[in-house]
Formats: sequence, C-alpha cells, structure tokens
Amino acid sequence: MKLTRRVKEILSWYESDNPGTKANLARILMEGKLGGTGRLVILPVDQGFEHGPARSFAPNPAAYDPHYHFELAIEAGLNAYAAPLGPLEAGAATFAGAIPTILKVNSSNSLASAKDQAVTGSVADALRLGCSAIGFTIYPGSEYAFELMEELRELAEEAKSVGLAVVVWSYPRGPNLDKVGETALDIAAYAAHMAALLGAHIIKVKPPTEAISLEAAKKTYQAHPIEVQDPAKRIAHIVQACFNGRRLVVFSGGEAKSADALLNEVKAIHAGGGNGSIVGRNAFQRPKAEALQLLSNIIEIYKTKP
Amino acid sequence: MKLTRRVKEILSWYESDNPGTKANLARILMEGKLGGTGRLVILPVDQGFEHGPARSFAPNPAAYDPHYHFELAIEAGLNAYAAPLGPLEAGAATFAGAIPTILKVNSSNSLASAKDQAVTGSVADALRLGCSAIGFTIYPGSEYAFELMEELRELAEEAKSVGLAVVVWSYPRGPNLDKVGETALDIAAYAAHMAALLGAHIIKVKPPTEAISLEAAKKTYQAHPIEVQDPAKRIAHIVQACFNGRRLVVFSGGEAKSADALLNEVKAIHAGGGNGSIVGRNAFQRPKAEALQLLSNIIEIYKTKP
Amino acid sequence: MKLTRRVKEILSWYESDNPGTKANLARILMEGKLGGTGRLVILPVDQGFEHGPARSFAPNPAAYDPHYHFELAIEAGLNAYAAPLGPLEAGAATFAGAIPTILKVNSSNSLASAKDQAVTGSVADALRLGCSAIGFTIYPGSEYAFELMEELRELAEEAKSVGLAVVVWSYPRGPNLDKVGETALDIAAYAAHMAALLGAHIIKVKPPTEAISLEAAKKTYQAHPIEVQDPAKRIAHIVQACFNGRRLVVFSGGEAKSADALLNEVKAIHAGGGNGSIVGRNAFQRPKAEALQLLSNIIEIYKTKP
Amino acid sequence: MKLTRRVKEILSWYESDNPGTKANLARILMEGKLGGTGRLVILPVDQGFEHGPARSFAPNPAAYDPHYHFELAIEAGLNAYAAPLGPLEAGAATFAGAIPTILKVNSSNSLASAKDQAVTGSVADALRLGCSAIGFTIYPGSEYAFELMEELRELAEEAKSVGLAVVVWSYPRGPNLDKVGETALDIAAYAAHMAALLGAHIIKVKPPTEAISLEAAKKTYQAHPIEVQDPAKRIAHIVQACFNGRRLVVFSGGEAKSADALLNEVKAIHAGGGNGSIVGRNAFQRPKAEALQLLSNIIEIYKTKP
Amino acid sequence: MKLTRRVKEILSWYESDNPGTKANLARILMEGKLGGTGRLVILPVDQGFEHGPARSFAPNPAAYDPHYHFELAIEAGLNAYAAPLGPLEAGAATFAGAIPTILKVNSSNSLASAKDQAVTGSVADALRLGCSAIGFTIYPGSEYAFELMEELRELAEEAKSVGLAVVVWSYPRGPNLDKVGETALDIAAYAAHMAALLGAHIIKVKPPTEAISLEAAKKTYQAHPIEVQDPAKRIAHIVQACFNGRRLVVFSGGEAKSADALLNEVKAIHAGGGNGSIVGRNAFQRPKAEALQLLSNIIEIYKTKP
Repeated sequence: MKLTRRVKEILSWYESDNPGTKANLARILMEGKLGGTGRLVILPVDQGFEHGPARSFAPNPAAYDPHYHFELAIEAGLNAYAAPLGPLEAGAATFAGAIPTILKVNSSNSLASAKDQAVTGSVADALRLGCSAIGFTIYPGSEYAFELMEELRELAEEAKSVGLAVVVWSYPRGPNLDKVGETALDIAAYAAHMAALLGAHIIKVKPPTEAISLEAAKKTYQAHPIEVQDPAKRIAHIVQACFNGRRLVVFSGGEAKSADALLNEVKAIHAGGGNGSIVGRNAFQRPKAEALQLLSNIIEIYKTKP
Repeated sequence: MKLTRRVKEILSWYESDNPGTKANLARILMEGKLGGTGRLVILPVDQGFEHGPARSFAPNPAAYDPHYHFELAIEAGLNAYAAPLGPLEAGAATFAGAIPTILKVNSSNSLASAKDQAVTGSVADALRLGCSAIGFTIYPGSEYAFELMEELRELAEEAKSVGLAVVVWSYPRGPNLDKVGETALDIAAYAAHMAALLGAHIIKVKPPTEAISLEAAKKTYQAHPIEVQDPAKRIAHIVQACFNGRRLVVFSGGEAKSADALLNEVKAIHAGGGNGSIVGRNAFQRPKAEALQLLSNIIEIYKTKP
Repeated sequence: MKLTRRVKEILSWYESDNPGTKANLARILMEGKLGGTGRLVILPVDQGFEHGPARSFAPNPAAYDPHYHFELAIEAGLNAYAAPLGPLEAGAATFAGAIPTILKVNSSNSLASAKDQAVTGSVADALRLGCSAIGFTIYPGSEYAFELMEELRELAEEAKSVGLAVVVWSYPRGPNLDKVGETALDIAAYAAHMAALLGAHIIKVKPPTEAISLEAAKKTYQAHPIEVQDPAKRIAHIVQACFNGRRLVVFSGGEAKSADALLNEVKAIHAGGGNGSIVGRNAFQRPKAEALQLLSNIIEIYKTKP
Repeated sequence: MKLTRRVKEILSWYESDNPGTKANLARILMEGKLGGTGRLVILPVDQGFEHGPARSFAPNPAAYDPHYHFELAIEAGLNAYAAPLGPLEAGAATFAGAIPTILKVNSSNSLASAKDQAVTGSVADALRLGCSAIGFTIYPGSEYAFELMEELRELAEEAKSVGLAVVVWSYPRGPNLDKVGETALDIAAYAAHMAALLGAHIIKVKPPTEAISLEAAKKTYQAHPIEVQDPAKRIAHIVQACFNGRRLVVFSGGEAKSADALLNEVKAIHAGGGNGSIVGRNAFQRPKAEALQLLSNIIEIYKTKP
Repeated sequence: MKLTRRVKEILSWYESDNPGTKANLARILMEGKLGGTGRLVILPVDQGFEHGPARSFAPNPAAYDPHYHFELAIEAGLNAYAAPLGPLEAGAATFAGAIPTILKVNSSNSLASAKDQAVTGSVADALRLGCSAIGFTIYPGSEYAFELMEELRELAEEAKSVGLAVVVWSYPRGPNLDKVGETALDIAAYAAHMAALLGAHIIKVKPPTEAISLEAAKKTYQAHPIEVQDPAKRIAHIVQACFNGRRLVVFSGGEAKSADALLNEVKAIHAGGGNGSIVGRNAFQRPKAEALQLLSNIIEIYKTKP
C-alpha cells in the first residue's frame, strides 16, 4: 500500500519517532474512506464510562453490544475506533486487522467527585489487543492535572518505545475554570498546546467558543486579534497552537445534536485546517442507517479541497 | 468432559482471552448441578472480613470452620466457592480439585472508616492455592474508586496472563450516593457496566431496586422507559449493561432474608436473563440441611427453561 | 465434584505440594472413565517430533490434525492429553476445559545425533494454555543426562510454585547401555527411581523386560530375587522403585503392536499395581473406531478390582 | 477494511493467539495483490548475510540499496518483506506503514563453519521498527538444532506476548543429512512439522524433491505411498505435515533459475494447496521490470481458483 | 576542537562528574559565538507551558513552529536551546547535532493553582533526543518545594549517571514570599545556593533586586553590607552563593522589555561575574531580524574583557 504524499508529509512531522510509531500513524491515516487525505474521522466509545450505559446506549440499544461499534466504524469507513479495555477485549479478535484501534488507558465516571481519571489500561494491553495507539485524557486546570500529566508521560514514553502512537484528549476543567472557560478559545488553544508539549501525536479538543477566558491572556488577544466570530478562524488558532500544524488535531462532536449543527461544525474544522473529527454520541446514539449517512456526510466535507 | 453448546457459546464471548482463562471459566461453568447450563450459583464467604466473625457465623456456628464452606458448596453442587486468603489456605489442600475456587484478593472491614479495601491476596496466591479466578471489589462513587480500579487493572492483567479468570464485585457507594442510590437501577447498571469496561469476566452486583438515582440519568430513563416495577425487567437492564449479555453477571443475595423472598429474587434473575446468584449469608447462616434445601430450590429455578 | 477416597489417598502422598498442584493432580485423576479409580490412561502425541509426521500419522491421516487428538482423548474418556507447544496452541481454545492437558516442554527428533532434547515450552506457556502439568523427558545414561536433569529441576521448581504438576518421561539410553539395557528391569527401576528422586509427580517408563543389565546390580538381584518371568512382578518392582508406590507411575505402550499384545501388557501393569498407561501410537495410528475400542478395553482392565 | 471469509477462516486456526498476533497475521494476509485470498508472496532479503553482498546483489546492483527491496515489494504488490536488522533500520521510516515487514532475528553466513546462526535481532527491535512478525531459521539435523530451537522458543514466546507473528524458516542440514536428504520429501515434511510443533504461525520450507531419505521412514512411505513424481502431491504432503493445513506454509524459490522453472514450481505449490511463495534471489537478482513481471506471473497463478 | 583554557578551568570545577557529563558541559561551553569564553547565552522556550501559546507566540507567530526556535538559536550562535518534550521531539532529528539541547523535564502552567510542576520528561527521553542536559525547575518556598527537590534529586542522579548535565531553574515563591521577596537579593542568593547544594551544574535565577526580604537575614546583611544599589555587586553576590563561582550561573531576561533595559542587565551580569543569560521571550517574541540583532548585542557584551 503506497502512502500518499500528504501522509508522508504528515509522518515527516513526527521526526523523532521510531518507524513503529510512524507505521501505526500511517495505518490510521491510510484507513477508511479518508485514507490518504490526511483527514481523520475516529469513533470513540468511552461514554459508557463517563455517563453510564443507559445515557450512552439507550437511544440506540444495539450499541450496548461492543461488536456494534467495531461494525459501525468499519462500515462507515472511519480511520480508527477508540475504547476502554473491556470493549476492545470483547471484539479485538473478531475484528483483528479490520480497523486500527486506540486503547483508552484512563477513564473517569459520573459517580466520581474528583476531576481525575483512573488508569484502566496498559501499554501491554494495547500490544496484546493489537492496538495502534493508546489514548489518554488530561484535565488541564484540575487539581489532578499534574498527576495526570505525569501518568501520561510515563505511559507515552513506554508506548513510543514499542511503536505505538499516543492520542491525548485535552479537556480543561478545574477550580479556575467556569463552564465558559472550559471551551473558551484561549483555554482550548492552551489545552491543545499542552498536549503537544507533552508529546502527543494526535490531539483531541472540543471546538472552541468565541470566549477569551483567562484574565492574563486578554491583553494578548486584544493586541493580536483573531476573528473569533468565524468558527474556522477559531479552529485555525487551535491548529496554530498545535505546533503550527505539526501535530494532528481532531475535534470532538460533543453532545448529541442535530445533523446540521454537527455538519456546520465539521465545515468549520475543515475550513480552519483541523485534521478531522472524533464523533462518538452523534454517531452511535443514532440508528445505524442514520449514523452511516451522517458519517458519510462528514467524510464528504473532509474530502472536498479546502 | 465435553462442554455443552451453551458453555462453548459463553466462552466465545471471551475472545481475547488465552485458553488458560477460558479453561478456568469452563471449569466454573461445567461444575455442579448447574454445570453446562450457563447458569451459576457461587458461595462467597467474605462476610467475616466485612462484618466480623460473630455477625457472620454465630447464627450457624459450624460456619466458623473454613472446611464447612467447602463442604457446603460441594454438597450443594455449586459452581464455585469464593473466599479471602486465610480460609482458602485452611482448606484448599483438603478440597483440592473438588470445587473451583475464587480468591478474593481485596477486602474491607467494619472497623475501617474509608470506603476502600485492602489488597489481601495475590495472583501468585491464587495459583499456589489452585484457584480458577481472582475476585476483586470496586466501590464506584467512593473517593477511593480510582485507586481501586487501578489496583484491579494491575491484578487483572496479571491474572489473565497466567490463565486465571477475573470476578468483579461492583458495589456503588460514596459521597454522591445515598442508601437509595447504592442499589438504584441506573446506578446498578452503571456499576455493572464499569466492571465490564474494566475487563471483568464475571460481574457481581446487587439486584437493583426501582429507583433511578442519578439526576443526569433521569431524562434518559424517561425517554427510554423500563418497566421498573417488574424485577425481571430490571435484571434484563443490568444484563444489557454487561455488554448486552456478552459478560456473565451474577447477583448477590444480600442480607439474610426469608427463603421465599430470596427465591422470588432468583426467579426474577432467571426471567431477566441474569446468569446466576452468589449466595453467602443466606446459605451459611442457615443450618446446613436448610441451606442445602434452599440452594437446591435456587438451582431448580435456574434449571427450568426460561 | 467429590473426590473419591482413593484419589484423596493418592493426593496425600504429595504432602509437600501446594493445593494448586494437588488440584491439578486431582483434575487428572478425576477425569474420564477411570476418574476416581486412581488409575490413568493418558494420550501422548509427541511422536511427530520424535519420528516425523509420516511415521506418526500416515497410518491414520486424520491424526495430522491436532484437533483429532483432543477429540480422541475426550471421546475415549481418558485422563489427560500430552503434546508439545504447537498442537496445544492449535486446539487449547476449542477444547478449553474439556480435558486436562500436559505441555511436553522438551523434545527430541530423529534428525538429531545427540541423545539430548531441546526445551521447546515453558511454564508460562503451560499456564496461558490452561495445562494441568508439564511433561519432561530425561535420558538417564546419556552424556546429556545431567544437563537434562538440571533443566528439569529448574522447570519443575517453577511449575510447582504456580500449582502445576510435573510428569517425567524417564528413558534410559547412552554409551553404557545397549538395546537390551535400555529396557532391562534393573535399569527401568533405576530410571523410574531417578524420576522420583528428581521430584516427579507422575513417572512414565517403558514396561521392563526380564533382563538385568547393570553388572554392579546383578549381585543384588541374585541375593534378593524377583520372579522376572512374571511381567506383573516386574511392574511391581518398578512401583517399589517409585517410593514404594508413593508416586504415580504409568507405562508407555511403545511401538504400535497388536491389540492383544498391548492388552496383555496392560493386564500386567494392572496386576503389578502400576497406575496406568500412556498410549500414543497404539491409539492414534489406528482408525478412530478401532482406537476407541482398544482404549475402552484398556480402561475396562484398569476398572476391574485388582 | 473488512477481512475476507478466507482470511477469517485462517485466523481461526490460530485460536490460542492474542488479537495482536491475529491482527498482524491479518495485515500480512490482507496486503497486496493477493490480499484476502489466503495466499502469500513474501520478499526475503537475507542473502547478503548468507552469501555476501556481491553474490547477492552484483547481478542487479540497484539491489545493494535497502530501499530498493521495499520498493520492489510494494510495487509488486507482495504481502510482506523480510530482512535482517540493518536493512530494516535503513528503510523502515521511509516505508512506514507501506508494507508489513518481518524482522529476521537470526542469521548465518558463508564465512562460518558451524551449522548455526547468530541471533541478530530482538522482539524490541521488531516493535520499534514496526514489524508484523519475527523470522527465525532452524536447522533440524544440525549439531546446533537444539540450541536453535531453544532460542526460537524464547523469542517466539516473547513475540506472541506482544502481538507479533512468528515465521520459521526450517532448513534441514547436518551430519545425518547429505545434499539429497536436505530437500527429500520425508525430511522436508519433517522439518515443516517441527516448525509447526515449535509454535510457528507461518512455516517456510524448500519445495521437496522425490527422494525419501531417512532410513527409518522408508517403510512408512512404502506402506502409505505418495505419488512423489507429482510435485503437487509432494506439496500436499508438506501441507499435511503442517497440522493438516492449520498452519500457513510457504515455499522458497531457492537459487535463481529460469522464470519457467519457477512458475512451474509455483503451479505445483498452488495445486498442492501450499499457501504461497517466498521469493528472494529470483526476484531481486533480476532487473526490476523483469522481476515485477515474474512476480506478477506468480501472483496470477495464486489468484486462479485451485 | 581544542578546548580553551577557560573551559578546561570551568570543567575542573565539576571534579566529581564523569567524563560524559563533562563532555556535555564542554559541548555547551564550546558552542556558538561565545564558544570557549566561559560565557553562555541559552534560548529557553517553555513559555508555551507557563503562559499558553498565544501569550507566548502571538507577538511573533512564526514562533508557533518548534523549528523556528532551533533556527533562531543556531543562527544567533547561542550555546544551547532548552524546551519541553514536544518541541524537542518535533525538531531534534532535523537539527540533530546542530546545537546542544536541554530537555526541560518539568513544567507548570497558568491553569494550575498549585505552585508545583508536573514531571513531563525523563532522562531516557533526553538520551533518545540527543540532549546535553536536563532542565528542572524548583520553587524554594512553595508548599511543594521538598517534593520538587526530591524529584530533582532522583532525575539528577540518573542524568549524571548517564553523562548528562543538570540545569536548575530556581524560582522562589510560596506562602512566605511576597512579590518583592521573590526577587529580593537575599532570597535570590539563597535560591541559587540551594540549586548548587542540590547538585546543579548550571543554575538559572532571575537578576536580584536591591531588597532584602527575609527577616532573619537582615541582621547579617547589615553586619556585612553589600552595595545593593550596584546591580553588578548584586550579581557578584549571587555568584558567591554559587560556591564562590564554582558553579555556572545564568540569569533570565524575564518579561519582554526594551532592548536597552535588557542590555543594561546583561552588562551588570557581565560586570558582576555572572556566566551568562538565558533569554526567552525577549528573543522569540521579537521579529527574527530584531531578535538576532539583540542577541548579537548581548553576545558582544559578554565577549568584552571584564
């Protein structure tokens, strides 16, 4: 399978990584309907941990079965499927080699009070399950942010040494951040940047709002203004924060919403130079046919020339 | 010993596990009067740790002797016997090969104030004692939930690598949960789901009540209603939360209660598609003859075609 | 499953072993048609290594498939199935829990010139494949005998620590032994005794001939004569050499031979107090129906009261 | 990428392997022009070690450059490329993700006198270089055969635990084998069988000649005759020796020869049910255009329905 | 490359270090336009972590790209470039061997509330990225100061054992220190001294003010007065605190300021015997040409005879 020029260019950004990690990034980038374009759509299913089974799967009960998500990701022609240990164990043999997988190695849940996560998977698990990457969430701003970063550091170092890629979910929250702050443009850019600084290969953040939240940052954004009303410009700023585009950055779809709202978000990501989407609830909470249609529409947007 | 078709089907769900772990699951599933049916009755005796000796054994003083529990489980034709390190050390040689055992590797006690557990057994202990599985309790919702999950992760990875099965007791408790919440349907489903996500082979939860406790979940259960008055429907929801039935789930008998109350619970578990019961106090706190009769009645229910 | 009195008695001989090893011995002793009698018939299939595939399997080509041997052992109601790594890997998941397996961890072959064996399996392999025991061949008399014994020592120590049993194939050969010597009564007794001395739980030797081979031993046998013409007396002497019966000893069937010849051998083993047979080529080189009949006949002999 | 039914069937043979190893086997089986057919053509370039650079590459000097072989394998649409450490280090980053690679972890050379090999690569190397498998040569019959098998055992156990596949080159040689013996039908079948017994996922042997070499085996082949004049029947016997087809077996092209001679060999492999070819010198010693044509012709043969 | 006498003298101060660490110190001291003089100018880029991407790079957007900083440091003829993991991974291969690098192995950020840092890099990372040193920040006075020191101890020990140098950023802050105190002369001297006591090879502090902050220290400074109005005398006092000049000490430029202000500071450092400057924001937040001019002016000052 010849890599496209674009994928080769992307791999060249990861110049310190060993060929094993590059090969796993290549596998993700060459898979599915966007294979070779440098754009990505990933299916993440960690909402069972985050919100519980009913809130995650009752809208589409077929999704209670871990095999469903493998099938959805494969049929939709996505680039990768991300999940915690249990669901991957429940399907990794049946779908071995059929789609790159990302083992989410830490997890939080709605019953917990701390803005922390438990480490629930290992690099050895990722290898025995045939994963291409590990996924890890950090909460910049949380009282546990430093611990989370240190856990990530350790797991990422090990993952890279055995040729796995590292995907970092960077979700700001904590005592210094109100609801607005968690998705404010400056904070989202900061969160993405920290993931890059920590050595992530692929960064996942939420699409930012127009808000500028950090007092200390306001002066900067006034002096160097961004057209925050234009969502594509906001995305472009996040891309800038990811080493000026030298690191892949994908955006979560967030809560289930109307197809139109989601597609508009995707258009902005596309226009702003984001590398793709990571669509969970908006995919698996819809009936399969509807989900496949929606994912197909998303993919079509990413396929158009920017 | 030829495995039944049903047991082979169940083993096929554990597709990422090595043959050692599958063999130990098979041993449990083929043992006793329910052997081959895919249903399970397990005798757990960790109440000495949880409640102290007198509260556990004074009602039936023969039960102070660890040999008593092996004998009870074997005579009753159960699938497995679960206990902490000490009782297994006290009987594992006498009853070697007579019944599959589960080493409970963490334990709490009534003198402790923290909603935590101490790790009191190891995978090496389980191997030298000839156990088929390790058992581990998590307290979703507790301040120690993340630590417990991380301990489980480490022990489960090791257990699986040497061919043991992993049984997870998932008991919600903690600052965000009142007494009602601990056994509420949504919380029980969530607890069972988390055990599955963490890679449990067999999940143990309490039979859920009709309550829906988590504020954030209420909307979901209104939109996708469950007939919560029907205990079998509640069980079926728990089964759904266990990867749509791809993971074995058994239900605890809870506090000692009337035989009728217990048998009604078992009928609901059976009707709802639960895989069986884990009956401790209701078994060993009764005189042996009475206990054997009760366990026999439970087994009869599980033997009827659903 | 209640152990029989006889099996409990046998387990009592292994008084230094941990309950894990006892449980695995119990599994072997309680399995199949002889389950509980203290007698054993084991199917060993390491002839592919020793003699090559065609010499082993051409007489009954179905036997080229590793699944065939699992099926044969299970259908015949044997106590265990022993094989090298590859065949166990090829069937251990399909037949998980269906019959105790013994991983043969060293192997020789007909292309080799040295009377040595290669270590071709590990204790970790045995655990992940769900085996009850490891099997190991020593060649007392060979130039490599000390090395083989030292390898056995190390593997046996590890196996026992994780609750596995140890089966030793003790086959005398080497510069001081001619063809007669290799199966001479004194040498066979000596070989069995060395296996016992090395810590074997189950000892496998060839049925001895009438010959007394070792010059130094002849005086003793003259002073303390054995009725060597009576094959049962020869077997009884081997049993004596196995700690006066405190260690299980089974006898190989050797080359394919007539059913009658084999059954006569088995009668002698039975009469002499041997614990059973390990029948390879005589089983799998016959068409399945014939093999099942023969194994059934063998089992019948062992079932009669001695 | 949906796996074909045939590839899923093949993966099912490897029932004890973890999903990681299955995924790597799937990658090899789904790659290139034969992707999904269950047939394989692999490019091995270890002749530089075996015969020195000039004997290997002077006929086609472009082949001195390690990148050449990656390109050849990719352009020809092969399933995998196998090489020692150095050449993979020299190209694995440039061609990351473009073709599955096999790290040959032991190597011999023409300056050595012993029929042994040096271990020249590790499992960690394979992971950091992004390989799908390790490759290892054994010399059944050599004075070093046992050592080689023990090295293989250790490396294979480690490789399997981290999700890599194991390819074994089984080349009989040694004091008991003359030139005829090294490729005799019985010996080749024996060599292939030993690789399977040792736990190989893919077995590589030379196409066998009509000769039956081992004295002890002649009687068997007379009693159970094979039409040795028919090369397809000889191949079919090798397939039989590989667990009756439960293990993939590929055949080396051997010395550079005429295209017609090679294609005839391939037709026999195809007709006899062999899984494919591993073509080194016959590929890279020809000018590239000629090599691509020859490989294309080989692939066409494997694509026809048997 | 012959070392200068001055560099040899400096190396002689590090008499307990192994030749590997000395060689890395020599590399830093011999690099760039100040190579051989014993003076240093280092470019540190950890502000992305500390202040976020926009506050760091919006004034000069080219600086969003990690390659920019390598280029700036090389073109300006600096001695070394210091950065966290991500930026070094993004450029270390392209600029391998082009300039000594320092891996900043801990990091804080503006979203955090604790005066702590996360360990975000390892000694192994530094080795694989070809760094000459690790950099570590301590906060003397913080509630986390002891933890930070202990982390430093461990990392420094490991770094030294593998021949890396250790650069310590010593920034006083915490409950007992007001804004004045953080840069007061006595506190700065104390902070520098603690870094030296902890085994730093190169110490980085802020240029001290005239203030004497610690109540307990005032008497001493009255008894042994320093001409605090003279910035060179203040620098000289810091040098004194660094083992009377036996440890290299460099001074940060602090917030972006006018070129004149910065050059005056540098003159004082030079006059006071400081070893150099570590100039971040004042370099990379200016347009490149302007930054190169400024750095050139700084270098010129350090080149004049004191």
